[in-house]
Amino acid sequence: MIAHPHHDGSALHIGGPAPHLGDRVPVRIRVPESFGEVEGVWLRSVRDAEPHYDAAAHLGTADGWSWWGADLSIVNPVQNYRWLVRADGRPHWINAEGLSTRDVPDARDFRICAFEAPPAWVNDSVMYQIFPDRFARSEAADRRELPEWAIACDWDRTEVIGRGPETPYQFFGGDLDGVRSKLDHIQALGATVVYLTPMFPARSNHRYDASDFSGVDPLLGGDEAFVALIADIHARGLKVIGDLTTNHSGDAHEWFRRSYGNPSAPESEYYYFSEDNTRYVAWLGVPSLPKFNWNSEGLRRRFILDDDSMVARWLKPPFNLDGWRIDVGNMTGRMGADDLNHEVASLIREAMRRINPDTMLLAESTSDAAPDFQGDTWQGAMTYTNFTRPLWQWLARDSAPGVDLDLDATAEHHPDVHPELAPGPVAAGPVADGGGVPKQAWPDYFGVPQRGPDRIEAEDFLATHLDFAAPFPWPVRLANMNAIDTHDTARAASAVIAGGQRVGVALQFTLPGIPMVFMGDEFGLQGFNGEDSRTPMPWDDPDRILEDLRPLYAELADLRRTHPALVGGGIRWLHAEGDAIVFVREHAEGSVLVAASRAAFSGVEFPAALVGAAHPEPLWSSGRIAATFSGATATAEGRGVVVLEGEGPAAALWLLPGVTPPAAAAPSP
Amino acid sequence: MIAHPHHDGSALHIGGPAPHLGDRVPVRIRVPESFGEVEGVWLRSVRDAEPHYDAAAHLGTADGWSWWGADLSIVNPVQNYRWLVRADGRPHWINAEGLSTRDVPDARDFRICAFEAPPAWVNDSVMYQIFPDRFARSEAADRRELPEWAIACDWDRTEVIGRGPETPYQFFGGDLDGVRSKLDHIQALGATVVYLTPMFPARSNHRYDASDFSGVDPLLGGDEAFVALIADIHARGLKVIGDLTTNHSGDAHEWFRRSYGNPSAPESEYYYFSEDNTRYVAWLGVPSLPKFNWNSEGLRRRFILDDDSMVARWLKPPFNLDGWRIDVGNMTGRMGADDLNHEVASLIREAMRRINPDTMLLAESTSDAAPDFQGDTWQGAMTYTNFTRPLWQWLARDSAPGVDLDLDATAEHHPDVHPELAPGPVAAGPVADGGGVPKQAWPDYFGVPQRGPDRIEAEDFLATHLDFAAPFPWPVRLANMNAIDTHDTARAASAVIAGGQRVGVALQFTLPGIPMVFMGDEFGLQGFNGEDSRTPMPWDDPDRILEDLRPLYAELADLRRTHPALVGGGIRWLHAEGDAIVFVREHAEGSVLVAASRAAFSGVEFPAALVGAAHPEPLWSSGRIAATFSGATATAEGRGVVVLEGEGPAAALWLLPGVTPPAAAAPSP
Repeated sequence: MIAHPHHDGSALHIGGPAPHLGDRVPVRIRVPESFGEVEGVWLRSVRDAEPHYDAAAHLGTADGWSWWGADLSIVNPVQNYRWLVRADGRPHWINAEGLSTRDVPDARDFRICAFEAPPAWVNDSVMYQIFPDRFARSEAADRRELPEWAIACDWDRTEVIGRGPETPYQFFGGDLDGVRSKLDHIQALGATVVYLTPMFPARSNHRYDASDFSGVDPLLGGDEAFVALIADIHARGLKVIGDLTTNHSGDAHEWFRRSYGNPSAPESEYYYFSEDNTRYVAWLGVPSLPKFNWNSEGLRRRFILDDDSMVARWLKPPFNLDGWRIDVGNMTGRMGADDLNHEVASLIREAMRRINPDTMLLAESTSDAAPDFQGDTWQGAMTYTNFTRPLWQWLARDSAPGVDLDLDATAEHHPDVHPELAPGPVAAGPVADGGGVPKQAWPDYFGVPQRGPDRIEAEDFLATHLDFAAPFPWPVRLANMNAIDTHDTARAASAVIAGGQRVGVALQFTLPGIPMVFMGDEFGLQGFNGEDSRTPMPWDDPDRILEDLRPLYAELADLRRTHPALVGGGIRWLHAEGDAIVFVREHAEGSVLVAASRAAFSGVEFPAALVGAAHPEPLWSSGRIAATFSGATATAEGRGVVVLEGEGPAAALWLLPGVTPPAAAAPSP
Repeated sequence: MIAHPHHDGSALHIGGPAPHLGDRVPVRIRVPESFGEVEGVWLRSVRDAEPHYDAAAHLGTADGWSWWGADLSIVNPVQNYRWLVRADGRPHWINAEGLSTRDVPDARDFRICAFEAPPAWVNDSVMYQIFPDRFARSEAADRRELPEWAIACDWDRTEVIGRGPETPYQFFGGDLDGVRSKLDHIQALGATVVYLTPMFPARSNHRYDASDFSGVDPLLGGDEAFVALIADIHARGLKVIGDLTTNHSGDAHEWFRRSYGNPSAPESEYYYFSEDNTRYVAWLGVPSLPKFNWNSEGLRRRFILDDDSMVARWLKPPFNLDGWRIDVGNMTGRMGADDLNHEVASLIREAMRRINPDTMLLAESTSDAAPDFQGDTWQGAMTYTNFTRPLWQWLARDSAPGVDLDLDATAEHHPDVHPELAPGPVAAGPVADGGGVPKQAWPDYFGVPQRGPDRIEAEDFLATHLDFAAPFPWPVRLANMNAIDTHDTARAASAVIAGGQRVGVALQFTLPGIPMVFMGDEFGLQGFNGEDSRTPMPWDDPDRILEDLRPLYAELADLRRTHPALVGGGIRWLHAEGDAIVFVREHAEGSVLVAASRAAFSGVEFPAALVGAAHPEPLWSSGRIAATFSGATATAEGRGVVVLEGEGPAAALWLLPGVTPPAAAAPSP
C-alpha cells in the first residue's frame, strides 16, 4: 500500500485557499522513486461532465519522492479530478480511494469546491457533546416544578431506562447553570467547542420534540441561563453550538396546534397534512414529531429567512451562539417525490453567512452522507458510516453477535413519545410496573437487525472508511464529526473489546475530522443504545466512574493543539491488516506517525523513506508499540526499514520531520 | 463467485411492471443451499434518505436455491435497496455489484424507479448505426452540386483522412436513397432499429454542426427522401431514430447568425455570449459549435416545447421518426455554475411522451453515465465505460500501448471545423499538401493520453463493468447501447487481438443492453479513431472487406429473437478470471449460458446446480468451447460439476432449463 503515488486535499498538495469558479488551482502529486519508470503524469478533470486531461510537469525530487504538478481549472462548483500516472507501461489511476490499475467511476474522484471554507476554528475543534438533562444539575433545579409528563429521577440512584414507555419521560433535571458550573471540566479535557443537544421547551427529556424554537426551556433555566452560559463559554475562548431540528417540530408546537384539524390556518402548509388536517406525515411515523413541508414559503421565512427566524435569532445578541448542528439533516425536505434538501440546506447556510460568517453548520446524516455534503451547504457531517461503524467492527468482540430480530430497533433512534396525536400535553401518568424492558446484553447497532457489530479486519476497516470518506471534499472531511459514540448510539465501551475505547479515542483525535466527545465517555460509561447511554454524569458518585479517561482526552487534545499535522495535515495510509492500522498525517511543519492495534502484532515493516524518517520520535502512546530502525534491510530506496510491533489494544504517535517538497512544489502560504 | 445469493432487476426477482410512487413491489432473492446456515434475510431500503429494514420471508426451495422475499415500498421516485443475508454468523450485503461482507455505500444499491418503462421494442432492439455520408450513395448523388466546403471523394478510391484539416470536409456523397437501397442488408443482419447520425444541413460531412434542425440536408435528398426512407423502414417492421444535438448548434444556424454580434436579437439568449455577442462558449472550444444556453425560455420553446419544435416535428407525420439519440447528452445544459441537464432532459422526455409514448430516447454520455440515467429522462445511454472500454482492455494486444503525448486527442471527438468564427460558409479551399497526418499505428483510446487500450484480466473486466453498470436501474441497463465501437471511436478490429472482434460481438449481443452495430463492423473494417473509421461501405469492392462477419451478426441477432433470456433475462456471473468470462442470462422460459475467451483456457468448474443444469445444450459457438459434465466430482450440492475448457478467442452459448422458483416466489405475469 505504501509505495504508491500520493495526493490528498491538504496544503502539501493543493495551492492556495478555497478557490472561486474560474480560478486555476495548482495541484501536486508525488510518486515514490521506487514506484517504477514513470512515463508521464496527467491530471484528469471533468468539465461540464466531460473528461479532460492536462499533462503534469515534473517539479523535482526530494526525500525519495518525485513531485509532479498541474493547474486545475475550477470549471464547475464541485470540480472533481484524479491523476493518471503511467509507469512501467501501465496506467495507474490515483483517486480519493487510492490507486487503481483499471477504470474507476468519477464518484471516487478528488474534489475541489468553489465554496467558502468553514472558519479555521471549525477544523481546530475538539467538541464536547452535552445532553442537558443528564450533564449537571444546579441548585435551582430543586426549586422547579416539574410538568405533568416528567418522571422525577434521582441523579445518582435512579437507573436510566434505555427502552420502555418511561424512557423519554425520565427527568433528571440537568440544566444550563449546571453546565456552567462544569466548564472547568470541559476545558480540562481540551474541548474547544461545546455542542448542546436541544434546549427548547418540549415534552420529553431529549427535547427534539420542540414546542417552541424561539425560547429556552424554563426547566433548563430559560433564556437568561442560556445567555449567561454562552457568555461564560466565550469568556474562556471556547465556542458553543446548538441543536436545531429542521425535519420536524414537536406536536405541541403552536404551528402544529393551530393547523391540526384546521386546514385554513396559515401554518397548515408547514406540514404534510391529510385534506382535513387530522392525519399527517411524522418522523418515522412517530406522531409527536410532525414533519415539516419545506414547500411552504411561510415556513421558510419564519424558520430561516426572517431576521428573527429560528435559525437566526440564536446567532445574534444576546445569545451569540456559534452555530448549529442540524438534527435529521438527511431527511430534511425529503418526502416521497419532494426533494428540497439541498434547497433548504442552502437557505440555512446563506442565512447564517449573512448573520455571522464565523459560524459552524454541521448536520446529522447518520448513513451514507457524502452525496449531501459537498461544501456548499452543511460544512460537516455527524455521520457514522465512515468512522464509528468500521471502528466498532474492527474493535468488535470475538464472538459473533447473532441476529436481533426486533426490527423496531430501527425506530428507536428517537423514541416514540406517544402513539396518538393529543391536543394537549401528554398525560404520562404512572407507567404500569415501572421500568422498561430488561437491559440488553448487546449494543444496538445503528438500526441494523443484529446484536452489535460484527468483527472485521483492519483492511476492511480501511476499505469501508475510504468508501464512505473519499466522496467528501477535503474541507468537509476535516469538518466531519469523528465520534466513537453519541447520544444516539450505544456507548463504544459497550460495543468494543476491553481497552478498545482508548484505541478508538486515539483514532478519533488523529484521523481527519473533528473529534466529538459525548459527555461521559471520559468516565468509560456504558449503554446499549442511545437512550441507555444518557447516564447522569457521575460527579458525586465515584463508583459510577467505570474508567477515568480524562487524562487520555486531555493528552490527545493537547497533541492536536501542538501539531497542526493532526488537524489539517494530509493523510497517507501505510498499513491496514488484521490487528494493526498505521498511517501518517503529513504537514510541512512536522508530520505525525500513528499506529493503532487491537491485539499484539509484529513485523510490520516500511522502507524508511516512505515513512518519512528512519527514526520516528516517540510522542505519545497508550500502550507499548515500538517503531525501530533496521539499517540492515535493503530496500528499493537504498535505505533501511522502520519496523513496528507491539501489544494491543494500544495506540501510539511519533513525530516525523515535516514534508519538504522541492522548491518548485512548495506549498502556497 | 458463483455460490452467492443472487438478485437482479429481472422478472425472476421483481414482481409486476414499472411501479408508481407508493406501490409495494414484491422482490425476491435466492440463496444457494450450499451458502451456509442462513439466520435471516432482510431487505434494506432507503426512505427519504433514511435506511429501513424489512424482514424477508422464506418462500421455499427449488433446484438448489432457497428463495426469500419481501415487499419493497416505493417511497421515493428512485427507490434504492439492497439485501442483508446473515449466514454462519456474518452479514452478507448483496447489492448491484455483488456480495460484500463489510458496509457498502448506497451508490451501489439496486434501484427500482417509479418511472414509465421504455416501450418493449426498445429492449428488443438490435441497432444498426449509419453515418449517412459513408453508407450508400444513390445515383441522384452524382447529379448534386457540392457546396464550397465539400471536398469530393471517390467512394472506393479516396482514402479516408482520419486526422487533418480535410477530415470534416471529405465528401463521399452517401445519401438517404442510398440507405433505402440497402435495407435488405440491414435486415439480413438482424437489425431492428436503424440509427442515423444527423441528417441536418451543415457544413461538414458529420453534420453535427447543424445549420438548421427543421429540414433534411438536400445533399442527402431532402425531406422527401427522409419520408420515403422511414416509410420503407416501417414497412419492414423496423424502427428508425435520428440524432439530435441539444448541446450546440452549428455556427451557420440562423439563430446564431442573427445573434452573433447582435445582443438585441431575441436568439441572443440561446447562447453564452460575451457582452457584445462576439465571443461565446463553444463545445470544447470548437468555434463552429456554439453552446446552447438552456436558461432561455425561447430556446426551450422552439427546440422542445412548441408543437413544431425541433424535438417534436420529426416524430410526427409525415416523418414519424421513432425517437432520438441525443448528441453530447452529458454536457447539455451544463456550463460552469449552470446545471440544467436534468431539467432539459425531463422536458425532452415529456415532450416525446406527449407526441408519441412509443418512442425511444437515448443519449450520449461517453464517460461515467449512470448518475444522469435513472430512468426518468433518457431511457438508455450511449456510453463506453461499462462495456466498450473494459472489452477493449480485456481483448487488448499483449504489447503495452505506451503513451500518446498528443493531448489534442481529447478534442478530436468532433474535429475542429474551423478556428475562427466566420459570418458565412467556411472557405475550405484547397488544403496545402492535401491529406492529413499519417495513419496512426495505434487506436485512439477515448481521449485518454495513451496509445490504445492497456490489457487487463477478466476479473478487472468484470469489476470495471460492474462499477459502471451497477448504478443504472435495471430498465436503463437493458436500454443502454452495447457497442464494440461507434462513429466516434477507433474500430474494435483495430483495437483488439486478432479474432477478438467476434468475442466482442458475442458479448454485445448477450450482455444486458441493446447491441449497437456501427456500419462496416460486419465487414471487419479498421480505423484508428472515429473519423478514420468512417470508411465508405465496401459494397462494390470486395477487396475492402477485411472479414465477412455478416453471418456472425445474423446468427446472434436471431438468438436474441429466439431466446428472451438474452434480452430481458437476469444476469448471474459465474466466472471472470484471466482469459475467460462465463455468465448465465436467466429467464423462466429458458436460460442461456455464455462463455467468452481471449485465449485457450481449461479447468473452469461449476457445481451443476449453480450453472442451472448438468448438461447444457450447445446453442451456438464461434470456436471450440466445451461444457462437459463430470459426475465424479462431489460438490456441496451433492451433484457433479460442469467443466468448461476451450480455445480462444472464442465464444459459445448453451441452452439451460428455465429457472423455476418455488410456487410462492413465482414471477408475476
